[in-house]
Amino acid sequence: MLVTDKKVVVMVGGVGGAKLALGLQQIVAPENLTIIVNTGDDFWHYGLRICPDIDTVLYTLSGRVNKDFGWGVADDTTITLDTLKTIGEDPWFLLGDKDMATHLLRSHMLRKGHSLTEIVQHLAKNMGIQANVLPMTDTEVPTIVDTVEYGELEFQEYFVKHRWQPTVKELHFRNMGSAIMSKVVQETLQDADVVIFGPSNPWLSIAPILAVPNMRETLISLEVPRVAVTPIIEGKAIKGPAAKLMAELGYEVSAQSVADYYGDVITAFIYDERDSALESYGFSSIAFDTMMNTDEDKARLSRQILNWLFQREEV
Amino acid sequence: MLVTDKKVVVMVGGVGGAKLALGLQQIVAPENLTIIVNTGDDFWHYGLRICPDIDTVLYTLSGRVNKDFGWGVADDTTITLDTLKTIGEDPWFLLGDKDMATHLLRSHMLRKGHSLTEIVQHLAKNMGIQANVLPMTDTEVPTIVDTVEYGELEFQEYFVKHRWQPTVKELHFRNMGSAIMSKVVQETLQDADVVIFGPSNPWLSIAPILAVPNMRETLISLEVPRVAVTPIIEGKAIKGPAAKLMAELGYEVSAQSVADYYGDVITAFIYDERDSALESYGFSSIAFDTMMNTDEDKARLSRQILNWLFQREEV
Repeated sequence: MLVTDKKVVVMVGGVGGAKLALGLQQIVAPENLTIIVNTGDDFWHYGLRICPDIDTVLYTLSGRVNKDFGWGVADDTTITLDTLKTIGEDPWFLLGDKDMATHLLRSHMLRKGHSLTEIVQHLAKNMGIQANVLPMTDTEVPTIVDTVEYGELEFQEYFVKHRWQPTVKELHFRNMGSAIMSKVVQETLQDADVVIFGPSNPWLSIAPILAVPNMRETLISLEVPRVAVTPIIEGKAIKGPAAKLMAELGYEVSAQSVADYYGDVITAFIYDERDSALESYGFSSIAFDTMMNTDEDKARLSRQILNWLFQREEV
Repeated sequence: MLVTDKKVVVMVGGVGGAKLALGLQQIVAPENLTIIVNTGDDFWHYGLRICPDIDTVLYTLSGRVNKDFGWGVADDTTITLDTLKTIGEDPWFLLGDKDMATHLLRSHMLRKGHSLTEIVQHLAKNMGIQANVLPMTDTEVPTIVDTVEYGELEFQEYFVKHRWQPTVKELHFRNMGSAIMSKVVQETLQDADVVIFGPSNPWLSIAPILAVPNMRETLISLEVPRVAVTPIIEGKAIKGPAAKLMAELGYEVSAQSVADYYGDVITAFIYDERDSALESYGFSSIAFDTMMNTDEDKARLSRQILNWLFQREEV
C-alpha cells in the first residue's frame, strides 16, 4: 500500500489547519482524506449561521480563499455590509458578498432541517472539493471565553469584536454535554490509518473537537499513529492568539507545552526545526520546517509527516 | 386649513403606487402623510423575508430606488446572487447586494420578535423618510394565484418566476381570516381627512388591503373623500399584469371596470384624460393626466387630486 493510499483524518480549526489540509489534498487520494473541523467558533449573526473554520477549509480546499488573509473569499466585496451601515446598523463581523452566499444557503438549509454535516458535504461538493469535509458535530456547541475585562464572551465576540485583546481566564464549550458525534465522524475515525492534528490553536480549535463526548476515548482507542503539528515556533504563534492565550492560561509558550497538552491523545508530535528537541515521553517527535507559505510547503510538510509515520522515503 | 395640512392616507402596491406616494410626499407635511402598503406579495426566500411593495415604497420615498426599473436600489449589484449560482443554486428572485441589507435586517428583526410595522418604521426612519409607512397588517397573508397552467402559485412565483404569463383563474389571500389590522392603521384611518388608492393593480395590490378583516367596513364608515386613481389608460396597464389579469378574470379592460370594482369603497375616481368620461354612480369622477414620469408629474397629479377633492385652486 502506498502511503498516499492510507486513510488520513486531519483535525483542524481555521487558517493554519486549512493550510495543512490543502497540503494533504495534494498528496492523498481524495476519497482517503477527511478533514474534521472545529465548530466551536460558529455563531448566528443577522440570522445567518456563520461557521468560520468550516468556511476557511472549504474556501482553501476549493481555491476560493483570499490568500492574503488565509480566510474569506478572494476578491470579495462588502456591499451588503456597507449598506447595513447606512441604515443604522453597526455589524462587527466581516460579511463579504461572495461569502454571504455560503451563509445564506447554509442558514436556509439548516432551517429546512438539514444537518450541518449534510450541508457541509453539499457545499464541498458544489465547490468542487473531492475530499471529505466534516463538522466535528452537528450540535451547536459555542465556545465561551471567560475574560477578565468583559466576563463571558462568545468566541467571535472575543476574537473579532474585541480582536482577542481581552485576558482569558477560562474556556468552556456551552452545550457540549449534549453534543453528539455524528455517525460519519465515528466511522471515519474507526477506519482511519492515521489521525493528524493540524497546527491549529490547541485550546481554541482542537479542544472543542476533543471535548465532543466520546471523541477523546475514541481517539485513544485507535491503534494508529496520531500526530499533532505544533502551532508554536520559537515561542510565538504563527498566527492569532495562541501564544497570548497560552501565557494567560499559565502555560509556557512552547511546542513542549502543546505536546504536553495533547498528552495521551497523540502518539507523535511534529515540532519546528527552528526549535530545540522536545522531551518526548509516551510519544515520538521530530522536527520539520512547519512554516507553510507556499502550496509546495504544504505538500512537502504533509509528505514529510506521512513518510516519517509510515517509515517511507517517498510518498 | 391648507390642503397640505389635510391628513392624507394613500394605499398602494408597488411601483405605480409608490410614484403617487412620492408625489404626495412633495406636497403634504410628512407627519400628515401615511402610506399603507400591500403585503400580500411578501414571501420567504433563502430564509429572508422579502416585502417587494414595502421596499419599493421605502426605496422610492428615500431616493434610493432604481429609477429605470421603478423598484430595487439604484446601482445595485448581484454578487451574492451570482455566487449562489456557482454553488449549485438557481435563485429565481433578483436579490441585489444593497437590497440584501434590507432583507437581512428585516428578517433578523422579525426573528427577534419585532412586528413588521415596527420594522418598517425603523427602516423608514433610518432611510431618512419622515412620512409614515405602514404595512397593511403584521400577519403573513400570502396572495395565492390559482392558474390554469400550474395550479396555485404564491404571488412571486407567478409574478417573477413565471413572469406573470400563466392564466389566472382566481386569487385568494391565505390566512387572511386570521389577519389583524394593526392599531396604528386603525387609528390613522379614523384620523384621516382623505384616503387615496394609488394607481396600483386593484386585484393584486389593493384587494389584499381591502381583504384585511374590518378594512372595507372601516373605509366605508369614514366620512371623508375616498378616491382611487386608475391604473388603466386607454385599455392598457401602465405597467405589469393588470390588463392581462382583468381580461382573464372576465372584466373589460377599462378604467370603468376599475371604478366598478372599487364600488362603495370610493367616493371619487380619477381616470386618465386620454380616456372618455366614466359612468359615475355613487361617486364623482374627473380626468387628469395620470402618467407619472417625472417627479414634477407626481407632485402635479397629487396636487390636482387634493385640489379637486377639497375644491381649492392651489395647494
